[in-house]
Amino acid sequence: MLKECLEAVERKMPLIHNITNYVTVNDVANVLLACKASPIMADDLEEAAEITSICDGLTINIGTLNQHTVPAMFAAGKQAVKLGHCVVFDPVGAGASMFRTNTALSLMREISFDCIRGNSSELKALVFGSGNTQGVDANVMDVVTEENLEEMILIFQAFAKERHCILVCTGAIDLVLDERHSYIIRNGRPEMSKITGTGCQLSAVTAAYLAANPERKLEACAAAVCVMGIAGEVAWERMEKGDGNASYRNRIIDAVYRMSGEELERRANYEMR
Amino acid sequence: MLKECLEAVERKMPLIHNITNYVTVNDVANVLLACKASPIMADDLEEAAEITSICDGLTINIGTLNQHTVPAMFAAGKQAVKLGHCVVFDPVGAGASMFRTNTALSLMREISFDCIRGNSSELKALVFGSGNTQGVDANVMDVVTEENLEEMILIFQAFAKERHCILVCTGAIDLVLDERHSYIIRNGRPEMSKITGTGCQLSAVTAAYLAANPERKLEACAAAVCVMGIAGEVAWERMEKGDGNASYRNRIIDAVYRMSGEELERRANYEMR
Amino acid sequence: MLKECLEAVERKMPLIHNITNYVTVNDVANVLLACKASPIMADDLEEAAEITSICDGLTINIGTLNQHTVPAMFAAGKQAVKLGHCVVFDPVGAGASMFRTNTALSLMREISFDCIRGNSSELKALVFGSGNTQGVDANVMDVVTEENLEEMILIFQAFAKERHCILVCTGAIDLVLDERHSYIIRNGRPEMSKITGTGCQLSAVTAAYLAANPERKLEACAAAVCVMGIAGEVAWERMEKGDGNASYRNRIIDAVYRMSGEELERRANYEMR
Repeated sequence: MLKECLEAVERKMPLIHNITNYVTVNDVANVLLACKASPIMADDLEEAAEITSICDGLTINIGTLNQHTVPAMFAAGKQAVKLGHCVVFDPVGAGASMFRTNTALSLMREISFDCIRGNSSELKALVFGSGNTQGVDANVMDVVTEENLEEMILIFQAFAKERHCILVCTGAIDLVLDERHSYIIRNGRPEMSKITGTGCQLSAVTAAYLAANPERKLEACAAAVCVMGIAGEVAWERMEKGDGNASYRNRIIDAVYRMSGEELERRANYEMR
Repeated sequence: MLKECLEAVERKMPLIHNITNYVTVNDVANVLLACKASPIMADDLEEAAEITSICDGLTINIGTLNQHTVPAMFAAGKQAVKLGHCVVFDPVGAGASMFRTNTALSLMREISFDCIRGNSSELKALVFGSGNTQGVDANVMDVVTEENLEEMILIFQAFAKERHCILVCTGAIDLVLDERHSYIIRNGRPEMSKITGTGCQLSAVTAAYLAANPERKLEACAAAVCVMGIAGEVAWERMEKGDGNASYRNRIIDAVYRMSGEELERRANYEMR
Repeated sequence: MLKECLEAVERKMPLIHNITNYVTVNDVANVLLACKASPIMADDLEEAAEITSICDGLTINIGTLNQHTVPAMFAAGKQAVKLGHCVVFDPVGAGASMFRTNTALSLMREISFDCIRGNSSELKALVFGSGNTQGVDANVMDVVTEENLEEMILIFQAFAKERHCILVCTGAIDLVLDERHSYIIRNGRPEMSKITGTGCQLSAVTAAYLAANPERKLEACAAAVCVMGIAGEVAWERMEKGDGNASYRNRIIDAVYRMSGEELERRANYEMR
């Protein structure tokens, strides 16, 4: 049950190492605190592997990829895998530049990620080795819809099998799948795309959920996706006259902070296949 | 009309590449989303020109200038100009250090900016090649007032002519001018100076307005300045007991998010000379 | 009196140079503006010493330490000391990696800090040359309690004497001490630890208070600690149904923005030894 996943995070308070972008890093730190995990950011090669060693999980996010932190990503990733920590990869903008696509593919070759979370364009860029990601947003041609759902699941499940990892594809419909099972999740609000960083936040929350629930990884990822989606719904219900995307951003993190296992269980809207 | 400029941004949803500082980058991303544009941040030489190629406009902001991103600024700027994209330059802190002043002047020599937006001290540092900028704020001696308005317009208009670009000088009175025409804009609130990054936000919004309105560039810049100023006014009207600059910051972005073409047209307070 | 310290900041509006981490930098800038100081961020060796020269105080924070900015920390720190500016050091995560601990110790050898502010684990790592800091949070074994208060004061006072500086140790109980006197401060809320960066914010505010009150440094540090603690209390009283840590973050900066000398004096909860 999703409830147990949330409560394990609250109980274990995992420390999550994030090598992430400087655009959304503050929100990532606050959302980890909101779900009762702890954040630490460290992206210099000099300390990346050592910091990861004292943590319970790692998120690697290439949102503002630069050459100086790439070696730190490899070092931390390898160390985390060696220690049996959960590692989540967020290939922000894969498909939008060669540098991002190639770095993402290299990281995937050398680090065995537990979970890769991205939008449909980013994940398709990883599957096919190139893409047409619209900046950091999914290209409209790539989006998961009720019509292409079966096909998308097949594509991603083949990739999950090949890579031995969980894939989380977020959009209007969210998919959480490994080679055998898939969660199809319909929580969230379209307005979440008008805030920078809800995807980055989800990747970090996913790392916290995996770190606290290593014995039920697929369910942990599904729980994290439901938490963010429900937080988006709760926050929207709390919007007041005159509020816009900045207030919505705060209200979403607030909703994660206040979410109980019961609320998660009651509002989670998913089917399994 | 300003209304058309806003509606063009909503319709075209331009993708704006930002090489910017890490202090205000999250607000810059959210304000671009608020005005219905899309942000992407990428500052590594390895991908800067390629990322700019898939975008509609570029903002270069030197707020936390460092040697590693300067080459990316040149590469992206030159590529954007080559592709006919609009490029906005925000010379944050020009006049406060040789590094900033000289980098700003070099960028201006090699990249033909469509618009340069700064406070009066920053712009005077560019005009005269040195300055006495008070950190990242205008020196009180440089401020545009009703008394020195004519003189300041003459100085900046000569510079706009020499550089073939639009200058946007923001402060209590905002100036938007090219070599022939000037908008004198009196929107905004003095409390906006108690928030970090309203200037950075305006530069990015200006890039979005230019990208969506290439056939009326001066008007597009004026519209962007009015949008931010009016958002500052609307946000101030929504302030509640106990609110301070952090809430004001959120409310300004919220006001940009909710602003309609009608509201912009109705509240814009400007004269043309 | 604490009131005079706050009013000196409002009157002198010190310009504070911050070489800080990219996680909390936006909040640091906004909280400096909230207390009527001005922020500038500059971390490149090319300009660090020059920027510090035009400022009134300097904060060095190693929250996302990287090799490229370490030389800028040394250059700015030495220049600030040479010019008689107040310099505050925030050894974020000292004790969590060799890189952080060793850089912190090197900085302390070469720069005579006016004040070092950290949590108990970070400060103990500096005292003993190594530590077991829990990421960026204090290890529960290191925390200052009513029981170990005397002992902790002795340890820190010996260190303050050796280093000729003020130590600020924050947690449930805050200590502000030099070799002779100590303030024991009991303002604040436990929920402040669920926001990233209240410590970073305090370090910057402390630099502003020191810069504006060079003739009463210990009292200035105590005033800064009380301001942040009281802001945490005021903000908590303003929390509404559904609010969480993101709203709390904004409300704390808002409370700093609105704090008067009278409120500070009235609500400050401290004893001196």
